[in-house]
Parts: sequence; C-alpha cells; structure tokens
Amino acid sequence: MPANRLFYKTRVVTPGPTDVPPAVLLEMAQPIIHHRTKQFQAIFTQMTQRLGNLFRTKGPVLTLAGSGTTAFEAAMISLAKPGSKVITVASGKFGERWQDIYDQYAPSLNVTNVKINVPWGQAVTAQQIADALAANPDASVVALVHSETSTATACDLKAIAQVTAKSNALLIADSITGVGALPVEMDAWGVDCVVTGSQKALMLPPGLGFVALGQRAQDRLKEVKAGAYYNLDLRRWLKALADNDVPFTAPVSLIRGQSVALEMIEKEGLETIWTRVAKLAAATRAAFGAMGLKLISQNPSDSVTGIFYPAGIDDSKFRGALRDKYGLHTAGGQDGRGAKWKVSILRVSHMGYVDAGDTLAFLSAVETELIAAGQKIESGTALAAAAKVLAS
Amino acid sequence: MPANRLFYKTRVVTPGPTDVPPAVLLEMAQPIIHHRTKQFQAIFTQMTQRLGNLFRTKGPVLTLAGSGTTAFEAAMISLAKPGSKVITVASGKFGERWQDIYDQYAPSLNVTNVKINVPWGQAVTAQQIADALAANPDASVVALVHSETSTATACDLKAIAQVTAKSNALLIADSITGVGALPVEMDAWGVDCVVTGSQKALMLPPGLGFVALGQRAQDRLKEVKAGAYYNLDLRRWLKALADNDVPFTAPVSLIRGQSVALEMIEKEGLETIWTRVAKLAAATRAAFGAMGLKLISQNPSDSVTGIFYPAGIDDSKFRGALRDKYGLHTAGGQDGRGAKWKVSILRVSHMGYVDAGDTLAFLSAVETELIAAGQKIESGTALAAAAKVLAS
Repeated sequence: MPANRLFYKTRVVTPGPTDVPPAVLLEMAQPIIHHRTKQFQAIFTQMTQRLGNLFRTKGPVLTLAGSGTTAFEAAMISLAKPGSKVITVASGKFGERWQDIYDQYAPSLNVTNVKINVPWGQAVTAQQIADALAANPDASVVALVHSETSTATACDLKAIAQVTAKSNALLIADSITGVGALPVEMDAWGVDCVVTGSQKALMLPPGLGFVALGQRAQDRLKEVKAGAYYNLDLRRWLKALADNDVPFTAPVSLIRGQSVALEMIEKEGLETIWTRVAKLAAATRAAFGAMGLKLISQNPSDSVTGIFYPAGIDDSKFRGALRDKYGLHTAGGQDGRGAKWKVSILRVSHMGYVDAGDTLAFLSAVETELIAAGQKIESGTALAAAAKVLAS
Repeated sequence: MPANRLFYKTRVVTPGPTDVPPAVLLEMAQPIIHHRTKQFQAIFTQMTQRLGNLFRTKGPVLTLAGSGTTAFEAAMISLAKPGSKVITVASGKFGERWQDIYDQYAPSLNVTNVKINVPWGQAVTAQQIADALAANPDASVVALVHSETSTATACDLKAIAQVTAKSNALLIADSITGVGALPVEMDAWGVDCVVTGSQKALMLPPGLGFVALGQRAQDRLKEVKAGAYYNLDLRRWLKALADNDVPFTAPVSLIRGQSVALEMIEKEGLETIWTRVAKLAAATRAAFGAMGLKLISQNPSDSVTGIFYPAGIDDSKFRGALRDKYGLHTAGGQDGRGAKWKVSILRVSHMGYVDAGDTLAFLSAVETELIAAGQKIESGTALAAAAKVLAS
C-alpha cells in the first residue's frame, strides 16, 4: 500500500510492461483451449489480421513466443546474408544489444559487423545511414532502433527507410516501443522488417514478440539458406503462418488476450492513439520544463520521457518513494557503452494503458517529492504546465 | 470510449456506487459456495467482526440483503415504539425519504411523525435536536442523516449523540456515505443505531445494507413487539447473528467480497482513510474555489463535494461531456421538497476506491469543459490549487 495515502492505486508507468486493461485480463483468464483446434485457429487468424492493421502492412506478421529480444534476434539472424556486412546502429542500451547479437553470431553467420555509434540521447540520421551504405555497398542488413527506450529517443524511421529502400540492405527496425504508440507506416514507408513486443503499447503482459515482413524480407528468406539455429528461424514461422498456425506450442492465453487488446486499439483508431501518446508526452515535457528539469533526449520519443535528476537526488530513494509512497512504478536508467545512466535518470511511459489521469498522478507525485527533497519549486507548477498542454 | 482520447479509462466518481478494487472483483468471482456450510460461516463470521471494527462498536452489526434504504427502513420500523413520537430530520433528499417512510408506516406502527426541516445545504444542529426532544419528551426515535449525499453536507453526529443519549429517544443515523469515509465512533459517541450500505466507502457493488446496534437499541428490540412486517424485522436478523448466520438466503459472493474489502480497509487503517478522504475533499474544494464556483453546502461533507453550475452550463450536456469525453461518471442533483437541484449542481465522490490521481483527472476534465463552455478560467488553475492542498 502506498505510504502517501492520497494515492491508493497502483499505477505501472514504466516503459514496459505497462498496465493491462481489465477486459484483456478477463480474456486471458478464460479456460485454456488446445492450440490444435479450430476454435484457437479462428482466434489466431483474427489476431494476425489485426496485427497487419497495426503495422500498416499487407505482409505477414509472425507471432513468436518470447520477448522482444527473441523476435529481434530471430529477424537479425534469419535475414542476414552469409558472407555479407551487417550495419548496426547503437544510440542506447538496446542498439548495443543488437550489435552484441551480430558479434555473437559472426562466426556462424559469417557476417562482418559495421557499427555506427551515436551519442546517447541523440538519434541516428538518414544521412548517417546513407553514408554507411555508400561505404559498405555489400551490406545485407541495417539493424537499428526506432524508439530507443533507454534514452527516450526516436529516430526518423521514414527518412531512413527511403535510404535503405534504394540499397541492397534490408532495414530491420526495433520498434518495440514504437508500434502502437508512434506513427509507423510499414508498407508506405518501405520498412523491410518491423519488430515489436506484447508488453508495451500492445497492452498485454510480456510473452509475445512480433515480426512483420515486407516483400524484400520475404524474398530474402527464400534466397538465403537457414544457418545453425532452429526455433528462431523465421522460415519455420512463415511456413506455419500460411496454414494460420505457429510451428511450436502457441501461448494460447496470451494470444487470445492480444486479440482483444488489438480489437480495442482498432476500435479507438491508431491515429487517435498516436495523438494521445504525443499529447501526454508533450504535457510531461512541459511539466518537467516548468520544474527546471533537463530532458535526457535531444530527439524525444513520444512513447517514453526521461529526465536527468537534479543534483542531490538519489535515484533509488526517489523512485522508491514514488513506488512506496504513491504506488507509481517508474523506470530509472541503464549503463551501457555509450553512457552510464543507471542512477542518473528517471523515465515514464506514455504508451499502452496509461492516460491523462495517470500522467497527472505521476507529475503530482514527482513535484511533491522534488519539493520534499529541497528543490525550489512552487506546488502546482508541474500540474498547471501539464494542464495547459492537455487542454490545448 | 471517451471522446477526449487523452482520457482512456473509465472512472466512477459518483457518490455511490464507486469503483470496486480488482482484488474484491476477483474474490466475488470465486465459485459459489452454499450458505449453509462451515466454509461460508467462517467467512461471514470474519466479515461481521470486521464490520464491528469499521463501526467502532462492540455491538452486533447486521448484514441485510438489499440497499441502504432496506437497512434504514428496517432500523426505523423495528426500533420505533408503538404509540410514540418519532423525530425525523430532513435537510436533503434522503432525510425526506426517511420522513416519508415513517409517514407510510404511521397507521400500522401507530407513531406520530415530528418533522424537522432544515434548508438544503445546511446541517441540523445539536441544539435543534435538543429543542425537539424538549418539546417531545415522549419521542422514541430520532432518525437523521449523518452525511446527506444529495446536498454534500455532514452534521455533527458526535454532538447530536450527546443530546440523544440523555433522552429516551434512540438515535438512528443514516451514515451511508459516512461510515468508512468520515470519522464515526459509534460506541464512544453513543450513537444507538448506525446504518450504511456496501456500495459507498465499503468498495463493494450495491447489494448489502448494514445495521449496527448499540446496547439501548438491542434493549429496545426486546422491549417492543414486532409490528406488521417480516423480513425487515431486525429481531430475526439479531437472532440469526447469534448463530453467526442470516435468517434468509445470504448473498454469498457479495459477502465474501465485502470481507476482502474490509480487510483492505483494516490493513490501511480507518484514520488513514479518513485523512485521505478529507484531503481529497479539501483539494477539490480549493480547485472549485479557484475556478470561482460556489459550493452547494455550508457544512460540506468530506465524502462528496457539490457545486452549483455557473450560469449557462447545462447539467445534462456538461456531465454527458465528462462521461462521453473523459470516461468520468459523476452525479448531478435531485429534486426534493426542500430544493430543486436536479439540473443545477455537480457532485463528485471522495470515498471508496478513488484516489488523488482520479481526483486530478476529474478536476482537469471539469476545468477543460468549463473553459470550452466560455468560462473565464486560465488552464491549470484548478490543478495548481488542488496540488497545493495535496502537497500540504
């Protein structure tokens, strides 16, 4: 129970997992059905159609049992051409992980990892990708992060796709905190492969990873022989999908929950959701600005906002207070090669089952705790600034 | 789905029913057990003990299947002495209902109804009760409302009980929006009978009414013969309770849900809850005041706040907008003999499963809609005023 008894409810505003709507929780509590039944097949088929609408693609969307990392690793290793170069971009913790994965597979896949490193808090530009492709015309893949959760930063995926579309390299985008929160038009923009996970904007518990494949990615899977991996081979998943099926035991409860969550998203409309997420992010940035706090990103993603703590604020104590006193589950930072932010930043989510009321609760608690910690802020500053944006 | 897509969740902030915590919903979804089993008896016994803690009484607390009105009617008709006077106080819609009930039963109970009418928005005083008892020393009952939901007004129940304790009249208090939200010390204050319902501060759906009996009320039940009524005869309920039972089929799911909700209340502590409710009410009053709105009550109850609409605001449209655009279920007013407030007021609850985050969501929506309706209010005024109180 929160110690500040004005706050009675638990609010998960971490950038994944996010809260799950009651309708989805209830759907997942339905009695288990076997995955080799017509009933399950109908649910799976409908969910897959809805995923296509979500990614804005007519191509296949694969549903893998696992995390976002499961899905992204599968895409990276299934789509790289043996003997080629792979271009990897790191501007945060997750980009660094994708670089590590190709390093790990380099001997078996026989790929050369060309690394672009961008300072944390900045986004890679289309020009940087164009330069890298010009220097490495034999690259078969560009793997990057659309919305880098660790730095609360988004790149211009559309502009980058215009560059990769003219090259021989497939663009594999980690949009794990992008799809369903930020505008993503996979087919219209020509992104070859987009990956996301269930526990972010898709309003489900963790457990499903999704890989959407454009035509060039499907062609690549036919062209290239599978390497020394099995369950992560997208060819198996694509083959099963042709029969509205998955190659291994399907997580039936998660899938039926996901179908309901996607129905909610469709009913609301993607553009409407994008607008809400952007507005909640703008209100949060305005409130942080009014309190004199500095954003961690120069190219903020709207799905998550991060700020540096003012001098003298202890991360563990501060977020512990938000959790124990206000029931607010927030995120701190991470250490990586590009920066050490483990104890220096605070992050809050705007995607998934989070709304203006939750955002105001978060800002109220942050302001109160900063004042309690001795920051010179007048009570109401953050909420007034946020209210102006919400009402605009 | 709310039309203002910054607000995604449904929030029931009406003064009953209020939202129900997920843990209570899950408990009520447990498989049905028969009510004549040791398992149910154990649950019922524990709930009854917890009710005693809630009312702050060592006396019996009866659990009736029905609404708050069921419970209050049962108390009124079971405790009145045939041939005596009954003093009824109306300062709002519910007080008027209790007056009507004794009028209805007057022939069969053979009671004379002495009515005290207080202007809506004001509270009856201990002096008024003392004067009425002095003028009617043969009164057997004083029936009044502790927290009058229709006018968002509370009286000084403690001071009134000091008066009635010295008389021959039993004090029957409708504390349906009091118990669990406002301080009530039944035994210490000497209130003879306190009634509440499940769907307010007790965080359950509607369906249970509770009657707590002090020693004088128990004595009265022995002293007076039952009248021409059956299921509402408290003697039957009191007799069954001696065997940890109820006289008619018990609503088992509601009772097990209520036991869990009461456990939550105990874990938090009543004083802590009283403080939260008072703070949320104070923040709401400050926000309304900052927007230039007038409270409907001169003695505001902390469990519910009401304001008069400014000129030009249409109740149905305004609350329809709160509901359809923000997912906020609020209450308007009611027409009665003392006032016609059906379309002129707005009410919001601070009791039950409602916290500071919900209150901020409500105030943000009200401010936005008032501005949209042409009121001269600067965005952020309400939230800044509320934040100052919440942080104080």
